[in-house]
Amino acid sequence: MAKVEYSKGLEGVIAAESEICRIDGENGKLYYLGYPIEQLVEKCSFEEVTYLLLYGDLPTIAQLDDFTRKMRASRDISEPIRSMIWNFPHESHPMELLQSVVSYLSGYIKHKVQHDAYCNCRTTLHQVVQMATVVATLHRFRSGKDFVPPREDLSHGANFLYMLHGKEPAELEGQIMDDCLILHAEHSFNASTFTARVVASTISTCYSSISAAIGALYGSLHGGANQRVMAMVEEVGDKSNAEAWVKKAIAEKRKVMGMGHRVYRAKDPRSIIMEKYLYQLSEKKNDFRYYETLKEIERVFREQMEEKGKPIYPNVDFFSGAVYRLLGIPTILFTPVFAMARVAGWLSHILEQRHDNRIFRPKALYVGKEERPVVPLEERR
Amino acid sequence: MAKVEYSKGLEGVIAAESEICRIDGENGKLYYLGYPIEQLVEKCSFEEVTYLLLYGDLPTIAQLDDFTRKMRASRDISEPIRSMIWNFPHESHPMELLQSVVSYLSGYIKHKVQHDAYCNCRTTLHQVVQMATVVATLHRFRSGKDFVPPREDLSHGANFLYMLHGKEPAELEGQIMDDCLILHAEHSFNASTFTARVVASTISTCYSSISAAIGALYGSLHGGANQRVMAMVEEVGDKSNAEAWVKKAIAEKRKVMGMGHRVYRAKDPRSIIMEKYLYQLSEKKNDFRYYETLKEIERVFREQMEEKGKPIYPNVDFFSGAVYRLLGIPTILFTPVFAMARVAGWLSHILEQRHDNRIFRPKALYVGKEERPVVPLEERR
Repeated sequence: MAKVEYSKGLEGVIAAESEICRIDGENGKLYYLGYPIEQLVEKCSFEEVTYLLLYGDLPTIAQLDDFTRKMRASRDISEPIRSMIWNFPHESHPMELLQSVVSYLSGYIKHKVQHDAYCNCRTTLHQVVQMATVVATLHRFRSGKDFVPPREDLSHGANFLYMLHGKEPAELEGQIMDDCLILHAEHSFNASTFTARVVASTISTCYSSISAAIGALYGSLHGGANQRVMAMVEEVGDKSNAEAWVKKAIAEKRKVMGMGHRVYRAKDPRSIIMEKYLYQLSEKKNDFRYYETLKEIERVFREQMEEKGKPIYPNVDFFSGAVYRLLGIPTILFTPVFAMARVAGWLSHILEQRHDNRIFRPKALYVGKEERPVVPLEERR
Repeated sequence: MAKVEYSKGLEGVIAAESEICRIDGENGKLYYLGYPIEQLVEKCSFEEVTYLLLYGDLPTIAQLDDFTRKMRASRDISEPIRSMIWNFPHESHPMELLQSVVSYLSGYIKHKVQHDAYCNCRTTLHQVVQMATVVATLHRFRSGKDFVPPREDLSHGANFLYMLHGKEPAELEGQIMDDCLILHAEHSFNASTFTARVVASTISTCYSSISAAIGALYGSLHGGANQRVMAMVEEVGDKSNAEAWVKKAIAEKRKVMGMGHRVYRAKDPRSIIMEKYLYQLSEKKNDFRYYETLKEIERVFREQMEEKGKPIYPNVDFFSGAVYRLLGIPTILFTPVFAMARVAGWLSHILEQRHDNRIFRPKALYVGKEERPVVPLEERR
């Protein structure tokens, strides 16, 4: 058979047009609907950015009031969902629960989603908002604590920390949590966003599509990098060990986590913002251990790579794990927190996909066996 | 901007190599791992075909005994899953529950799935087997009836009918149900199978990948065609109305359901087998209404299309809805029954994807706004 060319993993293949996200990797710039990420983080709430992603433009005061009220009113979870969380096996990963709950919610909400482009995706918002409640509640149940009902006077990020810890976070902490959600809300096509679009292309519900995307983000090649950065930081132990550790890692060709990104040739703009948050939190808590260790790893690694003529910069995951740790978020929740943020982007892509839809149905290249007869069971050896 | 060419819905784009399924559309032939579908249906059980799809070859007597024992021992569902079914809102679609349960099972089983190619996918089998139990149990609860524990002495198909109706099906019925599962077990790349592979490519669990695929099958462009065929049959009402109905439908350019298939130029080989089952069941029940109405729709439609020089044949969905109806399966369960069968193919593709994996990460073509500044909230109009 003649060799047929195709691109494994669809690398470099255009799957669809999109107006949502622009990544300028050469210059280290990231835009949602044309707005630079730095300005969104500085001037907007996560709820505002969610509005932007779902409606294509930033809201006016009245629109934001209305939208924020809707999002906050959707935070509480019903008794059957609490049972699912309560019954979920202790040693299992929260992402499995999150994927399950979002599908279940598809059936549970009163205003049933229509199987078409005119469904009520933008108004129910349970599929976006309740993920934070589920993640916080699972952690409380596992720590032997009670459910904390959400508070409508807090931002999405601050309320998450409140439900998780049972006490209102300091203003800076609530603000940084909300900003971290903005930073992770959208990043063009990647395996989970692409999954959401493929499922949406069958005209399935947005809940079913988001649930599928959670399954993809759960994969170890996708979510979970910041978890591995923290494991590295703990292995290094202290700033003073960083230089030797990094040089040894490079010599042994081990991966230094949180460094480099497929699409950014310059510094990932999100990592610059994350570093600032880590500094602010370290200052507030008077604990610079993570900050100093990470900065030292970065310094040595970049020095080493520049010597080889390969400049490599930190990506968003390099500092985010330490930020979460200082916010009191346990490591097992890092990927679920990523999902809580990215759901806004997923829903944006689901709506865009439906707008001018064609079902995703690529071809397989058959490389298997020629026709063969079924030998009766008793004659098989 | 210069126009960039790409293929919408990835139509015609090769996404991966596969050894699993060969469709010879020109000649109306379908093969699983090289075996013609007609022979598989005639000589094998659904459990045997599942073994074939998971291991790449038909089992010996000892292998099949062992595998069948494992599959049957996995049929029962735990108390938390029964609660999820019990609590699931009455008016919601069973596919949403099914998607949710499969993710939940990912956390619930004792032998935790590894996030790598060496996981225990082939041995736990809950993700394949319990779908039938969930579907049957949901229907029983909704009909105000009790849970029927599975029986290990029945085939997968016969046991499903037993759990659904609470009484052992006649031999012919159990046999036909099992064969229908074989006919739907695999069909190369399509949106749900592709979804399973995309999620698997992140090295997520097989449960998470299957759950995602269920979400795709739920979409109205994917599963559900046989449901629409039955709606058509009911609208036609009687054989004597078929000719006028079809001619009117063609004149009004309305779609005649269950006719034609993207990949088959000849008759879909599965429809030939399905027609035989419908005849056998009609004979057994002495009720030829569906059979005669469908055959008359087929006759008139094909006559009309051949006059236009466009030969179009029935596909697998044309007769399957009527077969399910005569087996006492309610219409709302048609797509879940499809999922119960296709899960074997999904798992086969998940295993194949992991074998020589590259994460699916295609490109988006950005067609959105240029950079714009974030206007402060109070200045927005």
